[in-house]
Amino acid sequence: MAVQTIAWHGRDPGYVRMIEQTLLPGDARLLEVRNVQDMVDAIYRLAVRGAPAIGVAAAYGVLLGVQDEGERAPDELVALVNETADELAAARPTAVNLFWALDRMRARAERDRAAGADSPAILEGLFEEAGAIAEEDAGQCERMGEIGAELVADGMTVLTHCNAGALATAGIGTALAPIYAAKRQGKNVAVFADETRPLLQGARLTAWELMQAGVDVTLITDNMAARVMYEGKVDMVFVGSDRIARNGDVCNKIGTYGVAVLAKQHGIPFYVVAPLSTFDPSVATGADIPIEERPAEEITEGFGKRTAPEGVRVYNPAFDVTPAELVTGIVTEVGVIEHPNTERVEEALRRGGRL
Amino acid sequence: MAVQTIAWHGRDPGYVRMIEQTLLPGDARLLEVRNVQDMVDAIYRLAVRGAPAIGVAAAYGVLLGVQDEGERAPDELVALVNETADELAAARPTAVNLFWALDRMRARAERDRAAGADSPAILEGLFEEAGAIAEEDAGQCERMGEIGAELVADGMTVLTHCNAGALATAGIGTALAPIYAAKRQGKNVAVFADETRPLLQGARLTAWELMQAGVDVTLITDNMAARVMYEGKVDMVFVGSDRIARNGDVCNKIGTYGVAVLAKQHGIPFYVVAPLSTFDPSVATGADIPIEERPAEEITEGFGKRTAPEGVRVYNPAFDVTPAELVTGIVTEVGVIEHPNTERVEEALRRGGRL
Repeated sequence: MAVQTIAWHGRDPGYVRMIEQTLLPGDARLLEVRNVQDMVDAIYRLAVRGAPAIGVAAAYGVLLGVQDEGERAPDELVALVNETADELAAARPTAVNLFWALDRMRARAERDRAAGADSPAILEGLFEEAGAIAEEDAGQCERMGEIGAELVADGMTVLTHCNAGALATAGIGTALAPIYAAKRQGKNVAVFADETRPLLQGARLTAWELMQAGVDVTLITDNMAARVMYEGKVDMVFVGSDRIARNGDVCNKIGTYGVAVLAKQHGIPFYVVAPLSTFDPSVATGADIPIEERPAEEITEGFGKRTAPEGVRVYNPAFDVTPAELVTGIVTEVGVIEHPNTERVEEALRRGGRL
Repeated sequence: MAVQTIAWHGRDPGYVRMIEQTLLPGDARLLEVRNVQDMVDAIYRLAVRGAPAIGVAAAYGVLLGVQDEGERAPDELVALVNETADELAAARPTAVNLFWALDRMRARAERDRAAGADSPAILEGLFEEAGAIAEEDAGQCERMGEIGAELVADGMTVLTHCNAGALATAGIGTALAPIYAAKRQGKNVAVFADETRPLLQGARLTAWELMQAGVDVTLITDNMAARVMYEGKVDMVFVGSDRIARNGDVCNKIGTYGVAVLAKQHGIPFYVVAPLSTFDPSVATGADIPIEERPAEEITEGFGKRTAPEGVRVYNPAFDVTPAELVTGIVTEVGVIEHPNTERVEEALRRGGRL
């Protein structure tokens, strides 16, 4: 029932087909990406976005860079994998899944090489690894959906921010996975979607993919979230994440922190839905997560015409950090980390074999 | 230093000249309004907006409807004043200043008639009344500016939402008056302006008028307010109001309530700046204030292109209510109502001769 956001097609050479998300919701065009530079560009332009989908895109990006290089010496091929990964890593500094997927690809090439593989076998291993990253992502989405759906009672209304749906993953999404899963179980679930300025991922993407799936969705501007909570219309919040610190602080799209404060004020549970790959155990707290600042024009002329005075100063942080104490729970593929703190996050990471 | 938003020009017939605010910030065009229907339209379209400016516009609107009717019998003229006022009252259901100014105009006509005035004298009285409404507004802005400026220390940064500036009044504004006054006193004051979706009054109007006046202003999207507070960049909040209940609950542009919750979470003082004419003693609490819902298109295609899927459901309340307990103080022309409640509001209204 959910859309297919990204997939690898063909061999010799293969290519990536993805939904060109910058044209949604007006135009559901498919983008074919055939080289590394175009993949870097697609990630930077947010043609593909959402932490898990970016990981899959990065893995496929490595394939695009090396798939025709089977004639090279194995050491050269491994060096090329690393160069390609470096190039892809520069596309978005905040996306930990990008680094994680690239590291898996590097490690696979180096491991196979160390085990004596020749270049064709190294290439075969890289295809296998990228495929596994995509399949694991889809499987994790399914599990988070099932676990998260247990929190959703029939007739509930969920508020979500940005897009952490099928369009953000190779599966049924993270924040939206419990909604798809609950609906599949026959529960009535309604959604308020924050439009999510400046880039309107909520209006353009979340509203679109939920409507495609027949989910009852109501669009609001970000500053209406407080009002709909005040009116008693929201039972719970589900959001995704771009990066989670070891103590459970959650880095996500700008505006998430404000929603968490509002949820607390109104006694509404605030859940983050994210696979263990979104956790970055090397970061102790959210204060250590660098926040990407994006161009002023996203705010001053984002709608096709200029809506702010020429020359006005703008502050445009793309992300914010929600302190762990505002998070009711983090839904992962190994279960819900209730009231997250360092101890509970570490326990879940160990259980998932990630620590 | 602040812009002139609305003024009456000429006689026999006279007309209203106002800044066409829907074209800002790109085009600072002046609109000439010469009949009642165009004034209703200007108020409905938000070509003139902000509670005090709407009051002045409404009073001038009555003049437009009756200025050529000096040949009528006095009773007919008074009836026409009432008809014209009814027409203007329908333009915006939430703006208490609209009703207040119209009631003043009705009362003036009826009082003069009861005292035996002929039609030319009734007309003269109406011109005097409308002029007084505009002058009182400008004077109140000055006093609120001076009183509010005492709260602003040199080097402080103020966050504001929507536009409650010179563009919202016939003077130097309400929420922005303390900033203009503090700057006049030689204090350095910086401002964060929420863009204020859906109609972007913050981006289009507040940023524009502060830049015109040389005030240091930084534009953010509404959902960044939480982040800039978290970063310690905001010392206080000043907002205006469209209507204040007898208990101090504040109805203002959608998003204000969310800012108040965020200010509380971060220990930041949250001030409302509004003249006593904004208070509606007939309304006991904010729950009794009707909230205008505006068209979905303001959210889905507000800026020249469609940014949400066709057919998506939208909720678009134009205002929200901030409970009095979240308000640090209400700055009025008779002083600051600290931690407002019914008793303190009534005391201020009595002091101002409004109860």
